Amino acid sequence: MTSPAPPTRADAVALDRVNPLARFRDRFVGLGDDAYLMGNSLGPLPAATEARLVELTREGWGGRKVEGWDEWLDLPTRVGDRLGRLLGAGPGQVVVGDSTSVQLFKLLHAALDGRPEATAVAVADDEFPTDRYLVDGVAGSRGLEVRTVPTDGPDGPVTAAAVSEVCDDGAVGVLLASLVRYRTSARADMAAVTAAAQDGGALVLWDLSHAAGSVPVDLDGTGTDLAVGCTYKYLNAGPGAPAFAYRARRHADLHQPIHGWFGQADQFATEAAYDPHPDARQLLVGTPPVAGLLAVDEGLALHEEAGADRTDAVGRSLMALVTTAAQAALVPLGVAVATPLDPACRGQHLALRHHDARALVASLAGDGIVADHREPDVVRLAAAPLHTRFVDLWDAVESLRRQLTS
Amino acid sequence: MTSPAPPTRADAVALDRVNPLARFRDRFVGLGDDAYLMGNSLGPLPAATEARLVELTREGWGGRKVEGWDEWLDLPTRVGDRLGRLLGAGPGQVVVGDSTSVQLFKLLHAALDGRPEATAVAVADDEFPTDRYLVDGVAGSRGLEVRTVPTDGPDGPVTAAAVSEVCDDGAVGVLLASLVRYRTSARADMAAVTAAAQDGGALVLWDLSHAAGSVPVDLDGTGTDLAVGCTYKYLNAGPGAPAFAYRARRHADLHQPIHGWFGQADQFATEAAYDPHPDARQLLVGTPPVAGLLAVDEGLALHEEAGADRTDAVGRSLMALVTTAAQAALVPLGVAVATPLDPACRGQHLALRHHDARALVASLAGDGIVADHREPDVVRLAAAPLHTRFVDLWDAVESLRRQLTS
Repeated sequence: MTSPAPPTRADAVALDRVNPLARFRDRFVGLGDDAYLMGNSLGPLPAATEARLVELTREGWGGRKVEGWDEWLDLPTRVGDRLGRLLGAGPGQVVVGDSTSVQLFKLLHAALDGRPEATAVAVADDEFPTDRYLVDGVAGSRGLEVRTVPTDGPDGPVTAAAVSEVCDDGAVGVLLASLVRYRTSARADMAAVTAAAQDGGALVLWDLSHAAGSVPVDLDGTGTDLAVGCTYKYLNAGPGAPAFAYRARRHADLHQPIHGWFGQADQFATEAAYDPHPDARQLLVGTPPVAGLLAVDEGLALHEEAGADRTDAVGRSLMALVTTAAQAALVPLGVAVATPLDPACRGQHLALRHHDARALVASLAGDGIVADHREPDVVRLAAAPLHTRFVDLWDAVESLRRQLTS
Repeated sequence: MTSPAPPTRADAVALDRVNPLARFRDRFVGLGDDAYLMGNSLGPLPAATEARLVELTREGWGGRKVEGWDEWLDLPTRVGDRLGRLLGAGPGQVVVGDSTSVQLFKLLHAALDGRPEATAVAVADDEFPTDRYLVDGVAGSRGLEVRTVPTDGPDGPVTAAAVSEVCDDGAVGVLLASLVRYRTSARADMAAVTAAAQDGGALVLWDLSHAAGSVPVDLDGTGTDLAVGCTYKYLNAGPGAPAFAYRARRHADLHQPIHGWFGQADQFATEAAYDPHPDARQLLVGTPPVAGLLAVDEGLALHEEAGADRTDAVGRSLMALVTTAAQAALVPLGVAVATPLDPACRGQHLALRHHDARALVASLAGDGIVADHREPDVVRLAAAPLHTRFVDLWDAVESLRRQLTS
């Protein structure tokens, strides 16, 4: 068995020439000729979003003023349904609002209210900090044990086998895991892990922050119970844009605990007691952030135009290029590839481990390549299907190679 | 004792001519010549905010992209401190983020964690719905009684006497009340009510949504424990802009329960357990909404330029004009003034009761006067010191008079 020849820069240029999504790069502003490999942190600004925000200030807030609410009031569910279509969720199950952390808090409590007999919460090992903090906090406040699900190797994907083992006594009420892990982009088998949790009597709560807009997600098809995620990465909705929450329709009786007026059945009733909205609006709390919601809407329009199949195909091709190039050029120099090599088991960034990761990222910046470093020793290079060029990724590997041999 | 002569339109025109804040109206966009009497619902857009948001998209998100976080990361506390100066709070006690409802949830729990012996929560009678829902929900989840503090007359201010009575057995852990009530703008005596609650062993949690930017507030000076409020009314930060939370420095040990990475002492520690930030940042949760925070910042700049004393003086003068005009022209026609007549006991909108309130508001709109209706029978006319003209208010009263006599 022979490895394929490592890609040359000419190969990368050729792949860009035939990339069916290549023209989407021009739909973003400010990318210039730099290699912006941070779509997994803050996605760049779509030109249409810039125009939409100008329209909001000119014609909405600055024009119709308070009457703008006629159009804004249902944005959390209207944009939620649109996002649901991208994530394989039928209407009435997804809302957009609050931060990912607040959504996690709400859904953890909702899940546990639905599992009053549970005595434990499970969370994937070494999860993103805010996820861990929320699990610890919610479990602590309810007197529940926190169980850690080991991953398949260091920072690898969560597996169904490990979930089955952790949930084997029926004590776990809810399992929280990122579908795509923040450090390595290791991707779990969503259907298998969901089934394993449910077989053990637990609900599954997926954090899709690194998955939404980057890899195919089928919320309804996998039988997922609950999910959250941010919109400022691959969904390009801007810094601090609102997060989303999904609650499967069959769980309409799972209510989140922050009882605000946007979650009330009759929002403008002034005399009544809180009466949870029968649909996903119960997941809402306070006044929705209009600018952020419009930005999510525009990001989704771009994704719809690109098409899920093409996004997936281009995404896989980008990851194949950067992974093969890194294996050939960097592994011999002491760099380890921390991201799974199986395309089905990874998301849209490549994680490279090297003891000098921080300095390597600084040297990339000197070459006009924007990437980031995660503690303790990881360099992340994101391959966002809508705006990353093959040559950006090739150049990043070459820049690292030069740095390591200089 | 004789009433003063009712103001004429010429009087209103003359007051506008000498209004020291008159030129501020031109600092907002989209007001034209309409009477926009909804500053208590959605404040209009400052021109500087429009420019700041364009700068965010061009130079920040669309330019520096992820590096913009160097400037954005501390916005919740930087803008919080600036807002604190307007509200009489020293630095390190105010943060901006989340919605008012989420802030209420956090601070209600924080307060009750600090009063473990409490068996009840008190809330002002007929409070704004989301406040009532949150009190009911939080109290319910903790097995606490909810006590209602009667107001001084229908929809009147909460008084120290009533609070003392409700808190007389030491069972109340926290009192939630709006400083300025949403329907009538009845304003409580902040210092006296705070002292009464504290004398009864309760913490006070003020909702300043209708107060911030409209009437003088002295958080530190009144000894307030906790406070929240929105920024999209008199602070002009736009639809769904983030809310604020105040926690007096002496209560740094009161922790809110939504443990997110922005409330962690070392935010970028990836291995540690949640360690609550020692200062007000513990009140933060997830990634902050950058556009909304910049809009709050610009709204505050306008308020600082106007000056608190002038804002208060002009605000009182506007309220005196509209109240006197309504008493003379509308009370004889069956309209009741629901807002207190004592200037110290009201905020910045006049509430008029009439059984046909909804139709009256529609007829105002026909005259280019934007006001609103609140169930069951209230017309609200807001007098926002920074952009409302005396003549706007006079014309509103005259329009109502014509409608009621036609």
